Amino acid sequence: MDDYLKANPVRRRLRRISAGERRDEALAFLRQFARETGMEAAALKQREAEVMASLKARGHYDHSADELAFGARLAWRNHGRCIGRLRWKSLEVVDCRTISDPDAMAQRMIAHLDAAHGDGQITSIISIFAPATPDAVPAVIESPQLVQYAGYLGDGGHITGDRLGIEAARTAASLGWQPPARPGPHDILPFIIRDAGGQRHLYELPPGVVRQIAITHPERPALKALGIHWYSVPLISNMVLTIGGIDYPCAPFNGHYMATEIASRNLADIRRYDLLPAIADALGIDRAHDPLWADVTLTELNRAVLHSFAAAGVAITDHHAESASYMAFVMQEQRAGRVPSGEWSWIVPPQASAACPVFHLPMVNLHAVPNFYVSRQLDGGQLRLDRSHDRMNRWQRRFHRWRDRWRDWRRRRDHLWQRH
Amino acid sequence: MDDYLKANPVRRRLRRISAGERRDEALAFLRQFARETGMEAAALKQREAEVMASLKARGHYDHSADELAFGARLAWRNHGRCIGRLRWKSLEVVDCRTISDPDAMAQRMIAHLDAAHGDGQITSIISIFAPATPDAVPAVIESPQLVQYAGYLGDGGHITGDRLGIEAARTAASLGWQPPARPGPHDILPFIIRDAGGQRHLYELPPGVVRQIAITHPERPALKALGIHWYSVPLISNMVLTIGGIDYPCAPFNGHYMATEIASRNLADIRRYDLLPAIADALGIDRAHDPLWADVTLTELNRAVLHSFAAAGVAITDHHAESASYMAFVMQEQRAGRVPSGEWSWIVPPQASAACPVFHLPMVNLHAVPNFYVSRQLDGGQLRLDRSHDRMNRWQRRFHRWRDRWRDWRRRRDHLWQRH
Repeated sequence: MDDYLKANPVRRRLRRISAGERRDEALAFLRQFARETGMEAAALKQREAEVMASLKARGHYDHSADELAFGARLAWRNHGRCIGRLRWKSLEVVDCRTISDPDAMAQRMIAHLDAAHGDGQITSIISIFAPATPDAVPAVIESPQLVQYAGYLGDGGHITGDRLGIEAARTAASLGWQPPARPGPHDILPFIIRDAGGQRHLYELPPGVVRQIAITHPERPALKALGIHWYSVPLISNMVLTIGGIDYPCAPFNGHYMATEIASRNLADIRRYDLLPAIADALGIDRAHDPLWADVTLTELNRAVLHSFAAAGVAITDHHAESASYMAFVMQEQRAGRVPSGEWSWIVPPQASAACPVFHLPMVNLHAVPNFYVSRQLDGGQLRLDRSHDRMNRWQRRFHRWRDRWRDWRRRRDHLWQRH
Repeated sequence: MDDYLKANPVRRRLRRISAGERRDEALAFLRQFARETGMEAAALKQREAEVMASLKARGHYDHSADELAFGARLAWRNHGRCIGRLRWKSLEVVDCRTISDPDAMAQRMIAHLDAAHGDGQITSIISIFAPATPDAVPAVIESPQLVQYAGYLGDGGHITGDRLGIEAARTAASLGWQPPARPGPHDILPFIIRDAGGQRHLYELPPGVVRQIAITHPERPALKALGIHWYSVPLISNMVLTIGGIDYPCAPFNGHYMATEIASRNLADIRRYDLLPAIADALGIDRAHDPLWADVTLTELNRAVLHSFAAAGVAITDHHAESASYMAFVMQEQRAGRVPSGEWSWIVPPQASAACPVFHLPMVNLHAVPNFYVSRQLDGGQLRLDRSHDRMNRWQRRFHRWRDRWRDWRRRRDHLWQRH
């Protein structure tokens, strides 16, 4: 094993689970798959034996295409931070496990982005590349999103573009990216693939694949002059998908936008585009005398984003509709006898919050696997099996509780010691 | 001890702490008082001995007037759910520990409300009545706020007034309250005092003491026709104040309003006045075609509330100013070397949330004593000593950690067994 593999930065992000935990998660996943897809008991038994044998022999097993598709949808359903999970069954799963060449991966991602946009209806798609195995970590996409705008820190501290993209623009430039001669506020960054050997490769998105929507207001034409744009498809590319004890460190997925993501956060946050004052001035809102100028501006910017996407024929939702869809998701889950995971601070929209029914809904995040996570340190370390569906007697339950505690303790200890 | 005292409903709300925990909290409070007020070491030592002797002899000790005032301000500073804590030092503490007759308490509360309103500037005041002792629980105010509007459930499910006040109106009526001949949306409820023997007494607020502000919009006169009012002083009367191991179950306090409390919650929530549709119609906002009608209405209602209070000369703040004041509080605490407690879901305003800097601030609620709480089951059970300021060697620290764990375990066990 060479030096890169020993201190692999992708491996460091992955969850550390023991062989026993991997077996448990695999079995629990196979049983959930069987339960929810109506698999025969005999077939399940055979599959369990197969997987256990494979885990014993090489510490790894391969998901069938159906298991992979079900697992990816389940990971979405379990992810407590997403408000749009009513559509979890509609996720289109593309099995890309055999694609390992960075160029071919980039090709696939460009096709993914194109297909996701489609005719503007935006299809939720996930492309699942090779899993991590005990011996190797596959190539991954390093960029947090496939489409990102560059940021430039100019002389005198003047900032052009997205503050979040300043570091990424520097990294891309150091890898050979040529920024436009006149840096603008909406320059699309290339994305970065780190291959299995640790080498980074830059890929530019070909013109025409990224559809950008000019943000205009239905009644106030002055907004157009600011030249604000946003892209049509949010495509998250740095989250690890974990299914039945197997981690897929490259499993980029997309959804469609909720307008507040663009209007109330990306364009408004002072650590992003910080455009509220400029937009307020363009809309003729009196910042000097109106203590609520930000509230008015945010609402009108949301209106502008909704209007612009609709006018361009690109799917987008507002926070009221999305909040209602989340309530429907919760009811659907409860009817199915399941406890839906929810993280209140992520689910509640940052706009008219208390007027959205989700504000008044008690939520709990069970952090159940399968799920998506960014890194072990940030959110992956909290993931665990949800045992609420297992039929156990009290001694089994007691045994599992103590074993889970012991594993938690060991995980905390490992975290302190920083073992690799 | 008679039957009432055995199953005292106020006692059931109070924290259950052992004699050892009471000693610990008393000592920690005396030391913090000494540290922050510059008390002499010799004086502290003498006071500690006094308090320990008193706790040993009768399981209780009396705070000096200075300790009481400092403790109440500290409880405010420690309370993670309040955004207005920059003003914690300005709290006016009124020592009412000798007032135990319900009529005299009611008299005092009417004077408190009147003084709090003052000339409209609104002073933050707390009236502290007698503490609970091992032998007796004093008289308390049972109403959650001193001023509350009644709610009426009419024939066919039609609701007049505040939905939150329906049960309270029924209780008041069963105790002899005569609702107005024509029940209206803003009928002020009498407040209830439960005396030391468990008897409930009703007290009406005399006309003129509760200042009500008619809600009008600066530019849109149609809002006035809806006849919406709100009162000037929020006076919380059902929280227990705990200082140095001593619980004060009757310590009503007031602040001034932040406009979102009235506009984005009390008047808007579907479980309160549910007025957003009616207000949108009055303001001429097109509910049928504007997906953001609620956002627009909320902003204009906030504007109306701010305008109406200002026009009436009554102090009120908006969520942007209050959010900035919270940031100043956090910086002030950090400069003093302390970790401020904050509960994100309570601190972040329900309006233009991400445009308020508090949205982006990581917070932690330490649940430190002294503090305010509603009941042991709801929030009181989480309160504990903040030991971060004690100078301890690692063995002391280890001992305290294990003892605290043991106490937590015992508390959970007691909670399961429901011991009284």
